Amino acid sequence: MAKTQGLTRREDNFSEWYNDLARKADLAEDSAVRGCMVIKPYGYGIWERMQRTLDDMFKETGHVNAYFPLFIPKSFLSREADHVEGFAKECAVVTHYRLKASPDGKGVVVDPDAKLEEELIVRPTSETIIWSTYKNWIQSYRDLPILINQWANVVRWEMRTRMFLRTTEFLWQEGHTAHATAEEAMEEARRMLEVYFEFAEKTLAIPVIKGVKTANERFAGALDTFCIEALMQDGKALQCGTSHFLGQNFAKAFDVKFANKSNVEEYVWASSWGVSTRLMGALIMTHSDDAGLVLPPVLAPIQAVFVPIYRNEEEQAQTVGACNELAAQLRKAGIRVKVDDDDTKKPGWKFNEWELKGVPVRFSVGPRDLAAGQIEVARRDTQTKETMPMGDHFTETIRNLLDEIQANLYQKALSFREANTRRVDTWEEFKQVIESETPGFISAHWDGTSETEDRIKAETKATIRCIPLDNPMEEGVCVFSGKPSVQRVLFAKAY
Amino acid sequence: MAKTQGLTRREDNFSEWYNDLARKADLAEDSAVRGCMVIKPYGYGIWERMQRTLDDMFKETGHVNAYFPLFIPKSFLSREADHVEGFAKECAVVTHYRLKASPDGKGVVVDPDAKLEEELIVRPTSETIIWSTYKNWIQSYRDLPILINQWANVVRWEMRTRMFLRTTEFLWQEGHTAHATAEEAMEEARRMLEVYFEFAEKTLAIPVIKGVKTANERFAGALDTFCIEALMQDGKALQCGTSHFLGQNFAKAFDVKFANKSNVEEYVWASSWGVSTRLMGALIMTHSDDAGLVLPPVLAPIQAVFVPIYRNEEEQAQTVGACNELAAQLRKAGIRVKVDDDDTKKPGWKFNEWELKGVPVRFSVGPRDLAAGQIEVARRDTQTKETMPMGDHFTETIRNLLDEIQANLYQKALSFREANTRRVDTWEEFKQVIESETPGFISAHWDGTSETEDRIKAETKATIRCIPLDNPMEEGVCVFSGKPSVQRVLFAKAY
Repeated sequence: MAKTQGLTRREDNFSEWYNDLARKADLAEDSAVRGCMVIKPYGYGIWERMQRTLDDMFKETGHVNAYFPLFIPKSFLSREADHVEGFAKECAVVTHYRLKASPDGKGVVVDPDAKLEEELIVRPTSETIIWSTYKNWIQSYRDLPILINQWANVVRWEMRTRMFLRTTEFLWQEGHTAHATAEEAMEEARRMLEVYFEFAEKTLAIPVIKGVKTANERFAGALDTFCIEALMQDGKALQCGTSHFLGQNFAKAFDVKFANKSNVEEYVWASSWGVSTRLMGALIMTHSDDAGLVLPPVLAPIQAVFVPIYRNEEEQAQTVGACNELAAQLRKAGIRVKVDDDDTKKPGWKFNEWELKGVPVRFSVGPRDLAAGQIEVARRDTQTKETMPMGDHFTETIRNLLDEIQANLYQKALSFREANTRRVDTWEEFKQVIESETPGFISAHWDGTSETEDRIKAETKATIRCIPLDNPMEEGVCVFSGKPSVQRVLFAKAY
Repeated sequence: MAKTQGLTRREDNFSEWYNDLARKADLAEDSAVRGCMVIKPYGYGIWERMQRTLDDMFKETGHVNAYFPLFIPKSFLSREADHVEGFAKECAVVTHYRLKASPDGKGVVVDPDAKLEEELIVRPTSETIIWSTYKNWIQSYRDLPILINQWANVVRWEMRTRMFLRTTEFLWQEGHTAHATAEEAMEEARRMLEVYFEFAEKTLAIPVIKGVKTANERFAGALDTFCIEALMQDGKALQCGTSHFLGQNFAKAFDVKFANKSNVEEYVWASSWGVSTRLMGALIMTHSDDAGLVLPPVLAPIQAVFVPIYRNEEEQAQTVGACNELAAQLRKAGIRVKVDDDDTKKPGWKFNEWELKGVPVRFSVGPRDLAAGQIEVARRDTQTKETMPMGDHFTETIRNLLDEIQANLYQKALSFREANTRRVDTWEEFKQVIESETPGFISAHWDGTSETEDRIKAETKATIRCIPLDNPMEEGVCVFSGKPSVQRVLFAKAY
C-alpha cells in the first residue's frame, strides 16, 4: 500500500483512520456547534449525486416531493404511544422566539417575555407533523394513495457523535405514504426497500442484506421495519436504510380516516422510509484504504483526472494541450473529467491529492508518452498502473475501465462480507467470534424472545441486525438459551 | 374573464385572492405551526424547477454547494455590530435538548436538567456560522476565492406571516464568497445580481429592475446591497433577490485573514446573495388572474394537458388513444405533458382544474375533432381557443406556442410595470399616486438622507425600493424636502 498521507492506518485505529479521512479528503469537518458537522464542497458533491440518483428513482416509482415544517408542536410527539418513547427524548427544544440586547451592553440575551406557549421541537423525523397534515387531505379512497417524499434536515440530540454516522443535525430524505389497505402500505414499504437495495448495490457498490428488524430494533411506531445492512471493513455492521410498515398507528393518533368504496370509514394505512448522510459513512468505510478515499465511479464527482508532466514551458504547453484534448473527448462521452494544470503544484503532490480524494482513474501525460502515442493510467481501486494507447478506442476503453472499477469495488466488498459472515452454533464460539478483531456477521439461531436478545446485547454488545428476507427455515436451538428456534438471524456489532 | 373557481376576485381583495389561489391551486397551506407553511407537491414541483435552474446557473459561474449547521451559537450573532441589529432579534431560540415524560403521565415536558450552557439560534441567515468556518479554511491568497452556495431552510420569527412572502420558516439558497480584493468581491456581488436578473426575466418571465439599496434598506452587515425589484399586479413592489457586498465586516468579526502575494496579512473580502421561496409569491402575483394560476411554460411542471372528450366507451378508447399518441410525440421533444384520462371527472371539471393550476396549454380532443384531423387548443395566458391540425408540424407548432406564451407573459408584465411607473415631481402628486388603487413605482428626486426617507415612509408607507443601476444623473430637487438632488430613485409600497 502506498504512503499514508498522514492518515492513521486502518489496522492501527479504524475509527481514527475514518475521522482523518473524512477531514483530509475534504468531505466534512466538525463545526463550532457541538455534534453538528460542516459538509464541505467535495463531500457535498458526492451527497448531491446520491440525492439526484435517489430522487430519480423515487419519481420513477410514482413519488412526488413536498416540504413540511421544521418545527413540531411538543404535544404532537406524544400522540403515538410508541413514537413518544423513541423520539420524544433527545430533541432540540425551541422555547423562546426573541433575543434582546444584554443589559450590560455586551451581546444578546434571550428575552424572557418571548416565551412560547407551547414549546416547539426541531423535527427528529416528520411522521407526526405530516400525519396532522394528511388529516386535511384525505376524505375518501379517491384521495389515496398519497406518495410523498421530503428532502430535509433533522435533529436528534446524540450524546456521542461521529461525522456522517451519528450527528446532531443530519440531512436525509423521508418518504411518507398513505394507503387504503394494509396490503398496499406493506407493498410500498417493500418496494422502497428494493429501491434502497438497488441504489446501495448499483450506485454505492455496497453489497447489502435485506431483512426485517426484530421488535427490539424496530422504528418507534412501526409494525414492521425493513432494512438494508452492510458490513464495514472493521467487521461492524451499518444500517444503510430503513422502510417501515406503520399500520394504522399514525392514522389513529391523528384521526385520519377515509370513506372506502362502500362508503364505510376506515383508518388510513401508512409507510415511511428514509436514508441519510450516514450513507457517506458507509461509502467511506466500505471502499477506502490507507491511502485515502476510494470512490465508485458512478458516484465520483470527478471520474478521471489528468496530470500533465513537464520540465519546461514548451513541454507544459504540449502536455497540457494533450490532456485538454483527451479530456474534451471523454467529456463528450459524459465522463466527468478534470485536468489538473495547476502550475504551483508538483506531479507527486497531485498524485497524492487525487489518490486521497478517491478519483477512480488518474492519467499522467509526459512528453515521452506523447511521442509514443500512449498514456499512463493508474487505477485507484487496485493502485495499479499501465500504459495504454491514445488512439481511436480511448474513450471506450476508459468507459469500460470505469465499469470494471465499479464492478470490482462491489465484488471486493462482497467477498469481504462473505469471508466475514460466520455460521455459529455454540455460545462459546459466538463470544469468541464477536470479540475477535473482525467480528463480522454471525448467523445463529435465536429463540425469538426480546429477553434473549437483550441478554446477548448486554454480554457482547452484539445486536440482531436483521432477519434476512430470503431466510431459509431451519430447525435448531438458540445459541444463547438453547430453546428451540426455526431460523437463523444475523447478529453483529453495529454502528 | 372565465368563472372564478371560488376565488376572490383580484379587484375585490387582492390579498384574499392571493391566499385563495395558493391554497386552491395546491401550492401551499398553513401548517399546525404558527407562521410555517406546508409546500404541497404541486407548489414544490415549481420550486424544484426554480432550484434546478438556479443551481445550474450557479455551477456555470464556478460555484459549488456545501452545507453548514442549522444552529448558530447565540454569541456568534452579536459579533458583527450591524448584523446583530438586523438578525439577533426575532429568532427561534433552542434552550434545551431533552424532553421527559410528564409527571402526571400525560405527554411530555421539557427536562429542566437538560438546559444548554449557551443557547442556539436557528439560523436566520448563515454569515456568522460560515465565516467562523472560513477562518479555518483560509490562510493564503492561494485559498481564495471561495465560491460556495448552500440550499437550506432558515427561520425568522415574523409577527405577520403570508404564504411564501413572509413565513417563519422558508427555503432559500445563500451564496457566501470570500475574496482577496474588494474589487473581486464587488464583481462577484454584481455577477450574481446579473444571474438573478436573467433568472427572473427568462425563467420566471418577471421583468425586474436592478438597483442598489439605500443605507436604510441595506442588509444588516453589508456595505452595499444590490437587488432586483418587481411590480405586482396590485401596484406594490416585491424584492425578488439580493446580493451583498460585505466588505471586510464578517472577516473582521471572525478574524479571517490571509497572507497576500507579498506575504502581508489582510482581512478577507466577502459577498453573500440569496433568493427564496418568496419567488413563488412573485410568480403568483405577477402572472395569475381571477381564474387561477398562470405559469410561464419554462417553469410549469406540466406544460400541456390533454383532455379527451367522449360519450361512450368506443369514443373513450378512440380519444384517449389519440391523446396518448400526441402526448408521446410531444414528450419525445422534451415537452412536459399530461393526459387527463380520469374517468370519474367530467371534461368541464378538468378544464377548470387545469386552468386553476395554470397549465399553459390545454388540448381537448373529441371524436369530431379526430374525424377532422384537428385538435382544440386553449391558451391559459390569453384564455383564447383555436383549432389546429394534428399533422406533421404539430410538435413544432406547440413548441413555438409555448415560447410565445413565455414571451407574452413577460411582455404583459413589462407593459403593466411601464404603465405603472410614474415620474413624480411634487409632494402633492406623490401622495396622490401612492394612495391610488395601483400605486406602482414612483420615480422621484430624493435628497439622499435617511431622515427624508424615514419621513416619507412614515407619511405614506412608501420606501425607496432601489436606486436603479442604469440611473441617469439628473439635477433636481427632492420631492419631499425640496433640497437639491442629483438623481431620481424608485419609491413604492412594498411586500
